[in-house]
Amino acid sequence: MKELLGGKGAGLAEMTRIGLPVPAGFTITTECCDYYLKHERKYPQSLAAEVKKNLARLERATKKKLGDAKDPLLVSVRSGSARSMPGMMETILNLGLNNQSVEALALNTKNDRFAWDAYRRFVQMYSTVVIGLSKEELEEKLRAMKARLGVRDDTQVPAYGWQELVGEYKEHFKKRTGKDFPEDPEEQLWGAIGAVFGSWMAEKAVKYRQVEHISGLLGTAVNVVQMVFGNVGDNSGTGVCFTRDPSTGEKIFYGDFLINAQGEDVVAGIRTPMQLSEMATRMPKVYRQLQKVRKLLEAHYRDMQDMEFTVEEGTLYMLQTRVGKRTPAATFKMAADMAKEGLITKEEAINRIKAEDIERLFYPVIDPSVPKAELGERKLATGINAVPGAAAGKAVFTAEDAEAMARIGEKVILVRRETSPEDVGGMFAAQGVVTATGGKTSHAAVVARGWGKCCVVGCEQLNIDYISKTATANGRMIRQGDWITLDGNEGVVYEGEVKLSTPELPDTFSTLMGWTDSIRRLRVRTNADTPHDARKGRQMGAEGIGLCRTEHMFFKDFEQPEKSLDRQLAIQEMIIADSPDARRKALEKLLPYQRRDFVGIFKAMDGFPVTVRLIDPPLHEFVPHDREKQEELARKIGVDVEIVARRIEQLYEANPMLGHRGCRLAITYPEILEMQVRAIIEAAVECKKLGIKVLPEIMHPLVMDRKELQILTDATHRVADEIIQKSGVKLEYMVGTMIELPRAALLADEIAEVAQFFSFGTNDLTQMTMGLSRDDAGRFLPDYIDEKKAAVFSYDPFQSLDIHGVGLLIRWCIERGRSTRPKLKIGICGEHGGDTASVKFCHQVGMDYVSASPFRVPIARLAAAQAIIEEHSVRDPGKKIGKSKKKKR
Amino acid sequence: MKELLGGKGAGLAEMTRIGLPVPAGFTITTECCDYYLKHERKYPQSLAAEVKKNLARLERATKKKLGDAKDPLLVSVRSGSARSMPGMMETILNLGLNNQSVEALALNTKNDRFAWDAYRRFVQMYSTVVIGLSKEELEEKLRAMKARLGVRDDTQVPAYGWQELVGEYKEHFKKRTGKDFPEDPEEQLWGAIGAVFGSWMAEKAVKYRQVEHISGLLGTAVNVVQMVFGNVGDNSGTGVCFTRDPSTGEKIFYGDFLINAQGEDVVAGIRTPMQLSEMATRMPKVYRQLQKVRKLLEAHYRDMQDMEFTVEEGTLYMLQTRVGKRTPAATFKMAADMAKEGLITKEEAINRIKAEDIERLFYPVIDPSVPKAELGERKLATGINAVPGAAAGKAVFTAEDAEAMARIGEKVILVRRETSPEDVGGMFAAQGVVTATGGKTSHAAVVARGWGKCCVVGCEQLNIDYISKTATANGRMIRQGDWITLDGNEGVVYEGEVKLSTPELPDTFSTLMGWTDSIRRLRVRTNADTPHDARKGRQMGAEGIGLCRTEHMFFKDFEQPEKSLDRQLAIQEMIIADSPDARRKALEKLLPYQRRDFVGIFKAMDGFPVTVRLIDPPLHEFVPHDREKQEELARKIGVDVEIVARRIEQLYEANPMLGHRGCRLAITYPEILEMQVRAIIEAAVECKKLGIKVLPEIMHPLVMDRKELQILTDATHRVADEIIQKSGVKLEYMVGTMIELPRAALLADEIAEVAQFFSFGTNDLTQMTMGLSRDDAGRFLPDYIDEKKAAVFSYDPFQSLDIHGVGLLIRWCIERGRSTRPKLKIGICGEHGGDTASVKFCHQVGMDYVSASPFRVPIARLAAAQAIIEEHSVRDPGKKIGKSKKKKR
Repeated sequence: MKELLGGKGAGLAEMTRIGLPVPAGFTITTECCDYYLKHERKYPQSLAAEVKKNLARLERATKKKLGDAKDPLLVSVRSGSARSMPGMMETILNLGLNNQSVEALALNTKNDRFAWDAYRRFVQMYSTVVIGLSKEELEEKLRAMKARLGVRDDTQVPAYGWQELVGEYKEHFKKRTGKDFPEDPEEQLWGAIGAVFGSWMAEKAVKYRQVEHISGLLGTAVNVVQMVFGNVGDNSGTGVCFTRDPSTGEKIFYGDFLINAQGEDVVAGIRTPMQLSEMATRMPKVYRQLQKVRKLLEAHYRDMQDMEFTVEEGTLYMLQTRVGKRTPAATFKMAADMAKEGLITKEEAINRIKAEDIERLFYPVIDPSVPKAELGERKLATGINAVPGAAAGKAVFTAEDAEAMARIGEKVILVRRETSPEDVGGMFAAQGVVTATGGKTSHAAVVARGWGKCCVVGCEQLNIDYISKTATANGRMIRQGDWITLDGNEGVVYEGEVKLSTPELPDTFSTLMGWTDSIRRLRVRTNADTPHDARKGRQMGAEGIGLCRTEHMFFKDFEQPEKSLDRQLAIQEMIIADSPDARRKALEKLLPYQRRDFVGIFKAMDGFPVTVRLIDPPLHEFVPHDREKQEELARKIGVDVEIVARRIEQLYEANPMLGHRGCRLAITYPEILEMQVRAIIEAAVECKKLGIKVLPEIMHPLVMDRKELQILTDATHRVADEIIQKSGVKLEYMVGTMIELPRAALLADEIAEVAQFFSFGTNDLTQMTMGLSRDDAGRFLPDYIDEKKAAVFSYDPFQSLDIHGVGLLIRWCIERGRSTRPKLKIGICGEHGGDTASVKFCHQVGMDYVSASPFRVPIARLAAAQAIIEEHSVRDPGKKIGKSKKKKR
Repeated sequence: MKELLGGKGAGLAEMTRIGLPVPAGFTITTECCDYYLKHERKYPQSLAAEVKKNLARLERATKKKLGDAKDPLLVSVRSGSARSMPGMMETILNLGLNNQSVEALALNTKNDRFAWDAYRRFVQMYSTVVIGLSKEELEEKLRAMKARLGVRDDTQVPAYGWQELVGEYKEHFKKRTGKDFPEDPEEQLWGAIGAVFGSWMAEKAVKYRQVEHISGLLGTAVNVVQMVFGNVGDNSGTGVCFTRDPSTGEKIFYGDFLINAQGEDVVAGIRTPMQLSEMATRMPKVYRQLQKVRKLLEAHYRDMQDMEFTVEEGTLYMLQTRVGKRTPAATFKMAADMAKEGLITKEEAINRIKAEDIERLFYPVIDPSVPKAELGERKLATGINAVPGAAAGKAVFTAEDAEAMARIGEKVILVRRETSPEDVGGMFAAQGVVTATGGKTSHAAVVARGWGKCCVVGCEQLNIDYISKTATANGRMIRQGDWITLDGNEGVVYEGEVKLSTPELPDTFSTLMGWTDSIRRLRVRTNADTPHDARKGRQMGAEGIGLCRTEHMFFKDFEQPEKSLDRQLAIQEMIIADSPDARRKALEKLLPYQRRDFVGIFKAMDGFPVTVRLIDPPLHEFVPHDREKQEELARKIGVDVEIVARRIEQLYEANPMLGHRGCRLAITYPEILEMQVRAIIEAAVECKKLGIKVLPEIMHPLVMDRKELQILTDATHRVADEIIQKSGVKLEYMVGTMIELPRAALLADEIAEVAQFFSFGTNDLTQMTMGLSRDDAGRFLPDYIDEKKAAVFSYDPFQSLDIHGVGLLIRWCIERGRSTRPKLKIGICGEHGGDTASVKFCHQVGMDYVSASPFRVPIARLAAAQAIIEEHSVRDPGKKIGKSKKKKR
């Protein structure tokens, strides 16, 4: 009943139900909150009576009375929504105290100091949280009082100090509000309820939900619960514990405990807590009781629990239980262990893993050996963890500086108030990016996420001065060139260079990935342009290459880097050439290089298919645009520089994305296609002769029409079949097309008559379908995602597939394509192939495979498995999934 | 039976059937041609026997025998396909002559000279057409013979001269082929049949069909027909006549006639023919007979006929009849007259008109007062009439020169061997374009057609020398700067400046357009951005404005041109501004200008709806990109030039077509939307107060999502409703969207929940669906249309809608849109709204209106009427169409 009672309320109710010791209380539902917010902050009619009734029951249960002069009931009033929003909403403790009941509390506990401290805490919380008075002003009074008394720590303040402070607070209250501080506990209670409800719409809470993509909730519940005190003597205490170790995942009872303290003290970190195990000797009975609770709760919730408890004079009270947060490594270990223990099924174990858990396994992190104390000391500012990972470098404050310093080999971190499109060059050059403003959908976050580049945003403590190129935060100053370190997992900026490391993969990673492989239907391939990437992809579990972009081979020789310039020169000569023969001559120089690359790739993929996409980018991307380099090129290829310049000028396009690229190049210059097919097939024949199993799939990009594809396919077969025939080797290969243009998707039935396979290029398909240039969208797309602005989309459609729009076209395309070629092989090779939601969609619509960059291959494998689990749970809930039949290849 | 017998064969058969005097003969079908071409030039098995049988019948009918030594039958062997391809295919006359039969012919006609002339003509034609010997070499022998005999004209050559020439031709034949010239008439006949079939695939014929978009034909038929001779005395003759005057359309018997001549002589233009009317006195009996034929044929074919006839010794033979070509003015007059006469229905009259007929009515033409003789003298070269109209200017040979001369106010004609993308600037600057190579789908033709700019291509006689900047043709030379005149209707280039004029609209134009209006269902609006264009559109019959582009108002003040700079400055100031307030301040300066423009437009459209599209182009199109102008702008708006430069640099986009434009601007800068809505609604209120009927429709461009449109629509209502409420006037207005992005079309059901109307922006929709930038496609799209290259498309999809692909999306969109809003108003405002095939498609899919530029409005009205006629003829053939119900507005 989390939706109705909130996480905290449901947890308390559930613990009560299974017989655990929980302080008495009641919960006002999230429905009331919804009503309250929708009706100009008025409560539902029946609420007053219900609160009255339940308060009476609470008083009966505790045998105390709110505001009673002899044995007063004190309660906490806490928020609690269905999704955890730590620190975002409000809490009021010790409610029920007033001038009368504080005396009774002092008397009953025989502890003046405790009673008046409790009272001043209540007055402080009520003033700030319910009334909205400045926290600073109250803190200032506290500081002044301590100075007056000559004490440093709160613990040293005597009872009369607190009593004095209560007086001052109340005076301040009257001065600011014109009213007396409420003595009536019921008035206090209603004030607190309203404040908790109202805090749901506070700016920081709204922002948090937006950043975390939390939506569809009614609001917060209000938990009114009897106060129990851990700070009433050495027989009391408070603690937090986990049913397993949240950092390693080990099955040990893990937690912190403080004798004679309240929960706040644990959080505030003023006193160093003891380890939970020490409790065994200090409070053996309570410890044994807690051990039982641990077992009961983990078995009940079937997941690691994060529990809060208080011991009041030897009596254990469970204050909260919830599913505990954990490190990625612990996530894997717990999921695998629990499945092995039989606590959960393998399917549940798979569902416990999130894409981010995998992602974070591969990113560098702050080295675990770095002492906490050092981190505490170095901490400069905290912000929002926009893109995970960690990065260190010299601070720079402009994109130009970032690019200039990176050019001379320096590692830099770009520090900006915010980023805008003209900063992207600098962002790309930097190791990481930190901004003072913005959330997870800000320009900086969106752009950095696209590159998987560590990014911390919304570091509001950072005060950046572009003129002097410095930043200050919490009294420290960073100058341009000073080292800083970002922790994108936690959203923290550190001074200096903190040691980073890439954690080793936990053993349970391969256990779990093995489970995903055994149930998924969707195949997972990798995008790889080089033998090196191909091998990396295999290591990550790829079952073939879904996209091998040949144009990268034109630029770079990965095995003999000194040959890179030869390749570039050959392609440039081809572009400048003014006749098919001259082009052919230049292309012949490229042929051996491409062939060698393909041999390496085929070897790495022995037995797995390799989809090679023929040249795609417009030719102007291959030639120099400054005069000096054009002169050099002219000299090298022995052509007048004016001819070179003129040819390059001719290549200019107003909208290159919609221009002369993709298979349109092969239509105009068939000799490029011929050379590329030759390189692929000759390499395949060579490998075949070496006994390697080769499955080449030749793919034409940017196809828009059946007839166009027919021309390309005919040309491909002409070249390939001749080579195969001459070689005497038996070699099978496929010829297919990318689906990148809406027209191709619309006319899929016709195109499938020619194409042996489809591969969705969802980057381009998204660009065309939405009319959005990925390169330019940074200027306005953040406005479309930002909840404060247009909030048209909840995700960047270049990150996660626009299932609603582009997905509709994909569904249509698959249906129509298979209507004319029922066994049409269909995959996706856009970057969406490594995004969880997109991969699940690919599964749902019946694709055969997805293809992702090597490091995202495990994410795709996971998503494919989760997709089939979701499918089964809808179709046949409860049934276990056996090893599913995967199609061959 | 035109498909099977060809036009000529079908005409002859039909004339025979209705009892007209036709020489005896038979026709070999196009199916045989198809077989012949598909089977390595072998005839179908049965053909030999059939030809034999029919030849025997022909001999019986004529009582002559092929090759007979006494009374030989002579035949003509002519091509004839279902579509007229003038001059493209072959003809052999006088077949049947040999050494024997020529003597018989001489004897029987008592005319040696005639017989030997006939024989040498046959030998000449057979040698060149059937065998492929050089025409030049034979002509040279003729010239030499005439020189030897000292005669100038062919008519002066005596019989022995022709006899000698026959001997020389045969000798030449033997030398070149190693064989004797065939004496066997049957061998001659089969040679001729093969030559006619083969001519179907001759390069010039293939090219002609490609240019004229002729496809789907089987081939040519072969007509074997008894020869009749008009040149056997003064009782003989030959002529061409038309049932009505093909230039004016008047119902007069019009034609040319030559006494004692063959058809060739009329075509060759050696002798000046007499007018047909003279025949009444010279051959009264034949003339009366011909008059009857005229009536019979026009009534039979229900259209103006172009007939060829020969009179052989007082006997009339009809050789051919076909629908006659005519001028646009004559087209209108004949269609209207025939309908009034009851010869055809009004629907047929409407179907007689083609878009080109209307187009050509509005283009300038060579002034009819220019004497034919002058034109003949000035004629420099002929080519293919790629884009109609006429233009005069100084010849220039490079695009740069064209631009430079145009800049100083000179009118120029760009003369190129061919054009390529870098010539477009010069093409745009020129009055017209002429190229030496290329067909109707060449780059020059495609680009010029887009602008409606007069263009002649494939002028192969033109010999262009770029170095000396001269062109020679037929022995004359044109230097750069010399005046030339193009006739794009006829495809002719003239020396000097020929007088041009724009013809007056014929009266029958409005008669016929009235008929179209009375039957069409589809409404026709115009695209107009100014009051002037709006009025022009109304004159052309527009029933509202379908697209009023507000951004043009930012650039130019059409009524007070001196204010244009003020407008530009205001918009530039708005763009440079760095806050909403500063933007608002600048926009307020624009407001009164826009409002005034709208008042003018609303007045022009009193009672008709006006669809206003809010700002669409990316902002960088409004600001200067060179430093000097940026400095000037900075000075004027009082901002540092660096800020101006930086802001403009920020506006740079890699793919502006897919960038920050359309409604995305309104999402980022809502104040632009507010100002524009204010200007529209304030103008509407002002007009309403003046008693003008105003129907504003506010349209948001480039919408991709329902939520996005909701935001824009809400903002629109907020501004509009406040103004209306304050004004106290009752004003209704609509808010709708363009459909330009595939995503919007795909999600039309959702978008229609918000939009009150859809208007397809098919330019952008084509760009996005096909992934084709209109600005860049000139580089490769011609390859896609060229039948010799890829021939993927038969039309430029920016000229005529890609019904197959983009059309599919449009159908989907309309169906889905009306599923949630059944009365959704739907129109089209891309340039396809003025293209016949596209307009018909719009009708078929149930749009409410199309919108076209003012001069294309009549074309759209015509196409809309033709669409409904087609629809009825499919559904209910033969039924007359009554006045159809048009929806209101």
